[in-house]
Amino acid sequence: MSDVSLAGLSAAEALLRLERGLLTSEELVGACLERIRQLEPQVQAWTYLDEEHALAQARAADERRRSGAGVGALDGIPVGIKDIIDTADMPTENGTVLHRARAPHRDAAVVSRLRAAGAVIFGKTVTTECAYYSPGKTRNPWNLEHTPGGSSSGSAAAVAAQMVPLALGSQTNGSVIRPAAFCGVYGFKPTHGLIPRTGILTLSRALDHVGIFARTLADLALAAETLAGHDEGDPDTHPRASLRFAEVLEEEPPIAPMLGFVKTPYWDRATEDTRNGFAELVEALGDRVEEVDLSPFAREAWAWQKTIMEVDMAANLEREWLEGAERLSPQLRALMERGREARAIDYLKALRAVPRVVASFEELFVERYDAILTPAAPGSAPKGLESTGDPAFCTLWTLCGMPAVSLPLLQGSDGLPIGVQLVGRRNFDARLLRTARWLVRRLEADA
Amino acid sequence: MSDVSLAGLSAAEALLRLERGLLTSEELVGACLERIRQLEPQVQAWTYLDEEHALAQARAADERRRSGAGVGALDGIPVGIKDIIDTADMPTENGTVLHRARAPHRDAAVVSRLRAAGAVIFGKTVTTECAYYSPGKTRNPWNLEHTPGGSSSGSAAAVAAQMVPLALGSQTNGSVIRPAAFCGVYGFKPTHGLIPRTGILTLSRALDHVGIFARTLADLALAAETLAGHDEGDPDTHPRASLRFAEVLEEEPPIAPMLGFVKTPYWDRATEDTRNGFAELVEALGDRVEEVDLSPFAREAWAWQKTIMEVDMAANLEREWLEGAERLSPQLRALMERGREARAIDYLKALRAVPRVVASFEELFVERYDAILTPAAPGSAPKGLESTGDPAFCTLWTLCGMPAVSLPLLQGSDGLPIGVQLVGRRNFDARLLRTARWLVRRLEADA
Repeated sequence: MSDVSLAGLSAAEALLRLERGLLTSEELVGACLERIRQLEPQVQAWTYLDEEHALAQARAADERRRSGAGVGALDGIPVGIKDIIDTADMPTENGTVLHRARAPHRDAAVVSRLRAAGAVIFGKTVTTECAYYSPGKTRNPWNLEHTPGGSSSGSAAAVAAQMVPLALGSQTNGSVIRPAAFCGVYGFKPTHGLIPRTGILTLSRALDHVGIFARTLADLALAAETLAGHDEGDPDTHPRASLRFAEVLEEEPPIAPMLGFVKTPYWDRATEDTRNGFAELVEALGDRVEEVDLSPFAREAWAWQKTIMEVDMAANLEREWLEGAERLSPQLRALMERGREARAIDYLKALRAVPRVVASFEELFVERYDAILTPAAPGSAPKGLESTGDPAFCTLWTLCGMPAVSLPLLQGSDGLPIGVQLVGRRNFDARLLRTARWLVRRLEADA
Repeated sequence: MSDVSLAGLSAAEALLRLERGLLTSEELVGACLERIRQLEPQVQAWTYLDEEHALAQARAADERRRSGAGVGALDGIPVGIKDIIDTADMPTENGTVLHRARAPHRDAAVVSRLRAAGAVIFGKTVTTECAYYSPGKTRNPWNLEHTPGGSSSGSAAAVAAQMVPLALGSQTNGSVIRPAAFCGVYGFKPTHGLIPRTGILTLSRALDHVGIFARTLADLALAAETLAGHDEGDPDTHPRASLRFAEVLEEEPPIAPMLGFVKTPYWDRATEDTRNGFAELVEALGDRVEEVDLSPFAREAWAWQKTIMEVDMAANLEREWLEGAERLSPQLRALMERGREARAIDYLKALRAVPRVVASFEELFVERYDAILTPAAPGSAPKGLESTGDPAFCTLWTLCGMPAVSLPLLQGSDGLPIGVQLVGRRNFDARLLRTARWLVRRLEADA
């Protein structure tokens, strides 16, 4: 196999070869590094990468397999880490000059879990400034003049460019689902609190989620199974039985799922390509989909998300504000100024509205729908690098902490991918992935 | 025994007599009602009382004992309920004309627990307006021209006047400890989250506590054991082993407790009587007490409590504000105006400071002190009924959610009681009562 096709293996495919002795982690990592050498000058997905350190981890993984020592669920698999996620052996700069050369002493909980599973912590991927809007250097591998989306720009681009099979990101509004859609990969933002955020730059306790990028649903399941679970440092995680993501993904749904198509109040932002794509999708799904109107109540969700995000970011980034507001981007400064002036009573009103919106969706899921079908973004990746695109189609689901997955099922007239988003019931994450797999197969069968 | 001395029995003493067949609940309730007939015209502790309903509950309790049916831990004991605590069989008016004749459909969790323990839900006691400052009609039984304290005015006065052996109150700043001190009874505000607040008027999730009034420490323990424990409706309660309050209270401390005397930044408000009383107390305790300075950090606690209380009350009483701001008292209106204008970032800063203050006290408790010794109020109950007095000596401990008990150990030159407050480590509530018992006995032995 050539280096390029080795780098293009999914994590699950690579693991199979590693287990059978057909591949070493060193070869796999070498192929990924070779791919990066070729494409990184154009794509610029990485903010930190130490080839020797990655290879050393790969050799240690190979040694574990050779010696018959305990082998983890991701043993020898390279994983890219968004640069707001702390790593004890690499800098974590959070996309801001204010944190240049910041060297955390401890791994984030998710990095510890990856290491315990034997993964090769490959390097740090580009984030926008403090995971907000101001773009990093990354370009869309499909067309270098287009944004990769943000804020998890580097992770999405690196997986799309076959530099790594897996990467971690985060989402406070649309930072996993949108770049996954723009870069044509699978992106998964599980239920709020499923994956611990300990050791990750906090923007908003209520809104922050860890997310995963991969090129297959099976890889999302594999990574989610490794990352999910209670951690004492994250008060929104809870002790619970571990989720059998990979197993559930392989199950056939007992009856064909029913999808609720939600246009959201922002349908007028959807491009013609998106409208046409979804019309075809709805047509192809026949009686398995019906349009669902949001309640007038849920239509206020965007304003609530905005208030919560602005206030929480103003509070959580206050040290940066005080130490160097002038070195923050104008976008971030403006957000923080709004957040600093917001009234507490409006903030509480927004926070308190969330459980009621969640409850209204719970009803829909219990009564009728397996998942909500909706765009991941208004269209394909917009041209230009000065903006990372519009998160409006993600906002509601982030606010509600509902699990969401972006599927690279459509293509725009510009040749760029368009993402289809499925949103599931809170805490039914594995089932959402199973529904996603059903949808992908159903459309493949139609094609 | 005369009716007056029957009404003066503690709950524990009455239970002993009930168990031995020397007393019926009907006799006990009858004696309490007779006492109320005599004193209520002056004291005015009750906002709702249906004699027949109380007697019917008493007769049902007596019937349980006679028939050998299961008998609860407070079976046949009258308990007064502050009128912000919902009762399905009596109105709950929250001390505001806006809730006149309000008739909740469900008991508050604490009322359910009392009923399950066989207690006679005796009637509703006067609260200040929405448990804030504007006084109700109640007067101090020790001197009718003095305030009983607030906001749990009626509960404190009713227990002091021997109208009931036990009553429930609530504390968001100083609403249990202060009236207990002014009325010369024992008041107990357990750790935040120990007793569920489900079905009680919410002022502030972070600050609201349920509290208990009694005339003995044993009765506080008895009631706390019945009331503590997880309830699904109160997210700050947690499943945990039940606390053996009564048992721990009877234990001898393994070594003589060490107390830390805290004057707080408000010592200049302490009256001469209080200063003298505490000087004598400190003298009497010898090497068992030493003065502890608050950290500069903890001195900010009063400002944080103010911000949290104002914002939370503005949010939680917004419906009342919108429906009838003009029928709220000027004090409450002013508080809500401040709360409505407060910035979210200041509110978050205050909330986030709390765990750090708590941690600083944890250290003190682990390293050296069994309890903090501090006044319950600046002095005895001030003259006049237009104010319920100053909660400054309670604020810090309420903010930190630490358990506090007021002990009627001192007397002012005006003949009115002065309370001594002991504050314990969070979640060591039973031990705080044990330390309180040690202190009481130690001072009795000295006397």
